Amino acid sequence: MVQKPKWVIQKEQDRRASANATVWLFGLHAVRDALQNPMRERLRLVLTRNAADRLGEVVPASGMEPEIVDPRKFPVELDPGSVHQGAALEVKPLDWGRIEDLAKPGAGQAPLLVLLDRVTDPHNIGAILRSAEVFGARAVVAPSRHSAPETGALAKTASGALERQPYLRVGNLGDAMERLKGMGYVLVGLDGDAPETLAEAAPSLTNAPTAIVLGAEGPGLRDRTKSLCDRMVRVDPAGAFGSLNVSNAAAVGLFALSAGRGGDA
Amino acid sequence: MVQKPKWVIQKEQDRRASANATVWLFGLHAVRDALQNPMRERLRLVLTRNAADRLGEVVPASGMEPEIVDPRKFPVELDPGSVHQGAALEVKPLDWGRIEDLAKPGAGQAPLLVLLDRVTDPHNIGAILRSAEVFGARAVVAPSRHSAPETGALAKTASGALERQPYLRVGNLGDAMERLKGMGYVLVGLDGDAPETLAEAAPSLTNAPTAIVLGAEGPGLRDRTKSLCDRMVRVDPAGAFGSLNVSNAAAVGLFALSAGRGGDA
Repeated sequence: MVQKPKWVIQKEQDRRASANATVWLFGLHAVRDALQNPMRERLRLVLTRNAADRLGEVVPASGMEPEIVDPRKFPVELDPGSVHQGAALEVKPLDWGRIEDLAKPGAGQAPLLVLLDRVTDPHNIGAILRSAEVFGARAVVAPSRHSAPETGALAKTASGALERQPYLRVGNLGDAMERLKGMGYVLVGLDGDAPETLAEAAPSLTNAPTAIVLGAEGPGLRDRTKSLCDRMVRVDPAGAFGSLNVSNAAAVGLFALSAGRGGDA
Repeated sequence: MVQKPKWVIQKEQDRRASANATVWLFGLHAVRDALQNPMRERLRLVLTRNAADRLGEVVPASGMEPEIVDPRKFPVELDPGSVHQGAALEVKPLDWGRIEDLAKPGAGQAPLLVLLDRVTDPHNIGAILRSAEVFGARAVVAPSRHSAPETGALAKTASGALERQPYLRVGNLGDAMERLKGMGYVLVGLDGDAPETLAEAAPSLTNAPTAIVLGAEGPGLRDRTKSLCDRMVRVDPAGAFGSLNVSNAAAVGLFALSAGRGGDA
């Protein structure tokens, strides 16, 4: 029998591990949103009596049988510093399908995407999902490794957007970028040293499928990522110092690029 | 002897308390920035040997004598979940002076300000200070009570901007708004139910001193704050749901209003 190469075995193991992975969502808002999302695979619902009362009809409507617990002995361990408000829900990460299907521009459409190159902070990703939803982006795309996974903290910061806005994790960001190019996307990298400003570039992009590409704070975009971008744009600081938080950069990019955009968004 | 009214006594006590208040900044980045800021009143510097080596010349140049401590017995208590990297600096909050001096438009100038109505999350305020610096706003103004104070967590999120970008706390936001109106400012409130969009309103504001007014997430702007705004603008969600994180809303507002602005910014 032919031995499978090591990387194939690793890939299969990763896939199995992520299929088995579950996440605890917590807080009334996040739990309510996930209970109301028909796409969400739900495993276990833990509520205090008080939280069950506050969620009301949402619980029976979801078809789940909650475990009612004593608030002084809440059985789910959460991140330090986080507040569960008496509500926790164990779920599977959402399956958003393939990038080819999600990103494909229909006739006359010019969709927007956000690509994140190793952004690891869950609060930033949560805020970016909210902005992506507001500005009508099709998806936020990030590599499976070196990105914040779908966690309770991310869900909380996303304030409902995690249930509605595709957060698509891909095996390799470079490969995804090449596939997007093949589908007609213009890949626009944000970088302080870029030759043109975001405001200058935006008007010429309103009729093209466009992906904004952002790097992690500090390291910025990796060389390979940069080399795959079609355009590089910058946001100039007014003074000698300063740089935007990555979620703020994403919001500004989405605002500038969604203005006057044809179709879809 | 005439008895002082109660509110005068309270005000004096508040002023004394805030004059005595000190803050621990932590992390190499925040400590380095504060050591290099000549406006910063510094009280106590605590470093591990390793952190002292990494800060290098910045320490002697600051004129401070560091206490070198054992990393296993770091003597300063910090917020849970935060990382000190072996460096902590006790400081007084910065004194940015009076709003009249800070905000006053010179001849032909159209400065930008950000006003925050009870935004309590230090990470949001830190990110807003960064965006305010990038887009050349004169100051971020917030009421002394019900706003995140200048803390180590805020300084860390501000990533240096706290040392350079005025974060001005005022006794009463409504009074500050009236004074700004008197100085010729147009006060622009962000609110989901506003009659015009930010993008529609922005071009007409490029030659006026302008303050963007943002409320806390959830409650939004208070009624009094709203009634003092000259214009109300909104950012439309593309779909049925969604709202921006407050720091993302501030960044988008600053980007839109700083474009083509005359003078100052």
